[in-house]
Amino acid sequence: MTRLVELEETGPRKLDPSDIDDEKGDVAICQCGLSESFPFCDGSHRRTEDEDPETTYVYEDGKRRELERIVTADQ
Amino acid sequence: MTRLVELEETGPRKLDPSDIDDEKGDVAICQCGLSESFPFCDGSHRRTEDEDPETTYVYEDGKRRELERIVTADQ
Repeated sequence: MTRLVELEETGPRKLDPSDIDDEKGDVAICQCGLSESFPFCDGSHRRTEDEDPETTYVYEDGKRRELERIVTADQ
Repeated sequence: MTRLVELEETGPRKLDPSDIDDEKGDVAICQCGLSESFPFCDGSHRRTEDEDPETTYVYEDGKRRELERIVTADQ
């Protein structure tokens, strides 16, 4: 599966040792792109559990839709 | 500005102190979504420097296109 997510940031977030949870000894970084706390994980990846391997999804306004195609200005 | 990026991972990446660069004392996490080393920064955010604030972009096959619209299956 794959999904299109909308990102706005134009630079990296630097993490230092203070970003690592003292008790757990680690910090979970979002890779699904859906976290409201991006780049930190907030558990939103659970929404991807039942994604179909052959489908591309768009998550928007709390809903998930199946992507048919994207239209760009030069097409 | 904003951009649509394609992500496939369905779970977080856990970082621990060993992921932090000893010399720099930090690690740069990708927030633009374009890094080939996602979730780690590889400098790809430089491509976003001249994005127009009013435009949404799609980066694909090394090219950047302006998004006109996305078409989903139920529309």
